[in-house]
Amino acid sequence: MALSSVLATSCLPQTPQKQAVSVDLLITNSTIVTMDPNRCVIEAGQIAIRGDSIVALGPAPLLPKGTTAKQTIDAKGALVLPGFINGHTHAPMTLLRGLKDDVTLDVWLKNYIFPAEAKNVTEDFVRWGTRLAAAEMIRSGVTTFADMYYFEDALAEETKAAGMRGVLGESWLDFPVPDNKNEAEAAAYTAKFLKHWQGDPLIHAAVAPHSIYLCSQKTLHDAQALAQKYHAPILIHVAEIKKELDDSLAQNHATPVQYMDRIGFLGPDVIAAHCIWVDETDRKLLAEKGVGCVHNPSSNMMLASGVAPVVEERAAGVAVGLGTDGPAGSNNDLDLMEEMDLAAKLQKITKIDPRALGAQAVVEMATIEGAKAVHMEKEIGSLEPGKKADLILISLNEPNAVPMYDVYSQLAYTLKASDVQTVIIGGRAVMLDRKLLTLNEPEILAKAREYGKRVAASLVH
Amino acid sequence: MALSSVLATSCLPQTPQKQAVSVDLLITNSTIVTMDPNRCVIEAGQIAIRGDSIVALGPAPLLPKGTTAKQTIDAKGALVLPGFINGHTHAPMTLLRGLKDDVTLDVWLKNYIFPAEAKNVTEDFVRWGTRLAAAEMIRSGVTTFADMYYFEDALAEETKAAGMRGVLGESWLDFPVPDNKNEAEAAAYTAKFLKHWQGDPLIHAAVAPHSIYLCSQKTLHDAQALAQKYHAPILIHVAEIKKELDDSLAQNHATPVQYMDRIGFLGPDVIAAHCIWVDETDRKLLAEKGVGCVHNPSSNMMLASGVAPVVEERAAGVAVGLGTDGPAGSNNDLDLMEEMDLAAKLQKITKIDPRALGAQAVVEMATIEGAKAVHMEKEIGSLEPGKKADLILISLNEPNAVPMYDVYSQLAYTLKASDVQTVIIGGRAVMLDRKLLTLNEPEILAKAREYGKRVAASLVH
Repeated sequence: MALSSVLATSCLPQTPQKQAVSVDLLITNSTIVTMDPNRCVIEAGQIAIRGDSIVALGPAPLLPKGTTAKQTIDAKGALVLPGFINGHTHAPMTLLRGLKDDVTLDVWLKNYIFPAEAKNVTEDFVRWGTRLAAAEMIRSGVTTFADMYYFEDALAEETKAAGMRGVLGESWLDFPVPDNKNEAEAAAYTAKFLKHWQGDPLIHAAVAPHSIYLCSQKTLHDAQALAQKYHAPILIHVAEIKKELDDSLAQNHATPVQYMDRIGFLGPDVIAAHCIWVDETDRKLLAEKGVGCVHNPSSNMMLASGVAPVVEERAAGVAVGLGTDGPAGSNNDLDLMEEMDLAAKLQKITKIDPRALGAQAVVEMATIEGAKAVHMEKEIGSLEPGKKADLILISLNEPNAVPMYDVYSQLAYTLKASDVQTVIIGGRAVMLDRKLLTLNEPEILAKAREYGKRVAASLVH
Repeated sequence: MALSSVLATSCLPQTPQKQAVSVDLLITNSTIVTMDPNRCVIEAGQIAIRGDSIVALGPAPLLPKGTTAKQTIDAKGALVLPGFINGHTHAPMTLLRGLKDDVTLDVWLKNYIFPAEAKNVTEDFVRWGTRLAAAEMIRSGVTTFADMYYFEDALAEETKAAGMRGVLGESWLDFPVPDNKNEAEAAAYTAKFLKHWQGDPLIHAAVAPHSIYLCSQKTLHDAQALAQKYHAPILIHVAEIKKELDDSLAQNHATPVQYMDRIGFLGPDVIAAHCIWVDETDRKLLAEKGVGCVHNPSSNMMLASGVAPVVEERAAGVAVGLGTDGPAGSNNDLDLMEEMDLAAKLQKITKIDPRALGAQAVVEMATIEGAKAVHMEKEIGSLEPGKKADLILISLNEPNAVPMYDVYSQLAYTLKASDVQTVIIGGRAVMLDRKLLTLNEPEILAKAREYGKRVAASLVH
């Protein structure tokens, strides 16, 4: 009986360069966990980056003699892998982190979240909340995130300033929100937002109708039409809570997914957060229509929403990514590595089968499957020549990191956000040896504390 | 509606000193989360330590003018709380971290763990494994741990050298183990072990019959007799897997707990790991007999063992602590802060009720309830004058730590092992500003990697 270690996977160098070239960044001395279609793991590997893309990767020496690199990063034996994709969050809610936990969803929303948002959410709040979220996400190896909130244009500006990649959508709800009084305002805001960010290398502007229970059929259709006009993705919460299923069955005589299909809403532009209360027919529909799902195990456990049938969704051919959801009492952090660990453990215990969802599967969900779920698999999610240079270095130099028998096991179950050393997005280092390069951390911490006091005071009557 | 923030809890200074005295260590500028019977949280607090114990704590200024402190630690606004208690682990198995995951318990034990142990576990293995485990545990704020393994005397020596507090028991199984061929040898080893460590300030030597399914009734009685002779605690796995319950019902016509009660085994010296398959009668018995239970959510999820009825156990009056279990495919780390987070979330999702187990409850389980579970609540588990000075400083200076609306929420759901800055055990700093003071970390990492290669090679046929 041999260990099924994936440390020794041998892969041919990919598109080795024959002629001397110049590259902008060369990463050396790394164990490359490519997440490419063969799941190649390359030991003593190198990655060459030009502009915002990977031009070559493989075992050293990768580049022909005479090649020059403007910058070289010695990975010192670290794992290098595609940046994690946080497929569902509400970044500015980080300023409401743990505002109230351990209460029912209804009490939480009505007594705490909605009043806190009504009293405090401004463009300034969104900017500082996004900066705080970006700092935490970069520190935990997230390079791309999908977001639904308000003042999304300010959120996009801050995301770009932080050097992060974002799929960002202004939330539409059929009641007044901090920046829009009605659907017409939300539609006008979003049209301008989509136009403004078209062609941006980092920001994918999206349309984000909240859900079938907070958006009428007309709102959903308007959102869809706008998305189609601008070739933009659609972010939406789907089948998150049992009540959503029950109400849809009563009102639409169909599950949420089948209702959405009936009104022509499902398609390969849709990114569906949660997908908990979905039956076999729903899963087939999601796969057929190319809808991406995003699983949020922390949030689903914290709010007791239910357990998504992740194993069955994957088996049906649905791309399932991972998300943290917002940190205001439904997580309460933005740590995607914890979501990997939880996703596996939650399926195991729910199915009373330790084989249900394994280490490699959850690393896929955080990377290449996450990229598919947000419909960006041509750009990101794996380390391959031609793809964006979104990659992270994870140190193996802490007591919790040794020994290592299997690289996926280590990533899923033992390595922590704090082991992420360096983060590169589109060829640009945004964190180097745990130092953030695009964000003023002391200022962000001070502002977050200040907002914390202000929000707490606003809820005392 | 006001936030039920516990930041503002006001407490009287506890046993303020009236006369000038000299203290060995003074911790200043801290938010003290005492976990005392009133759950006092003291802002801008100070803690005075003499020898291995706390002599006073309270709001600054704590000590009368003229008091001198040999050493002062400025906590810089950090949270200070009792060190975490890891109520169940197998520390040297850290060298088998993630040896094999995602397989059934049977395959895992028979094909991987038992062969790996038979081929590799020596006294040297135990020493290096304990050092590695101690490094990881100290880094995550654990100051006391309960352990069941082999060569436990060497384990105790290394625990003491690391400056940690341990409840350590040599495992008894009714088959040959790496250091004992049979029960007679295990009994002789343990008698010597108990005698050797009597009265030690850090090491509580224990007796550790594995479980009712790997120990005969005679073995259990012999272990109990030895424990009683030396006033030692008894560590044992109880009702961990469904098969244990089913087999006990078939063979003993009683649940594991009721069988143990019938043979007179249960008492206030027993520390029962897991307690998953326990019914209402079992829970009453555990409470009545003063048995402590240790909940291991990561392990129980990873191995799909089942979900312990923690809420019902606590309601019945059972002291329930938290444990990591061993990290060889059943966790795979020694991070008790993750167990807090998981314990709460697992109860919520299982009961489909976000109120099921809250933040304060799981912080209790990691501290004062954990101390009760290992029968050491007079010494440790809370910060009170007269108790051992086992305490940790947790920084609030990272993006994941701000803002803070509720100190228990922050501890349970957002703060990480990497936020633990300083660890003091029995008045002695074992980690200061993330630097380990009692362990040679580079040497430990190198040895762990070496053992990793050796173990992997031993399993290739």
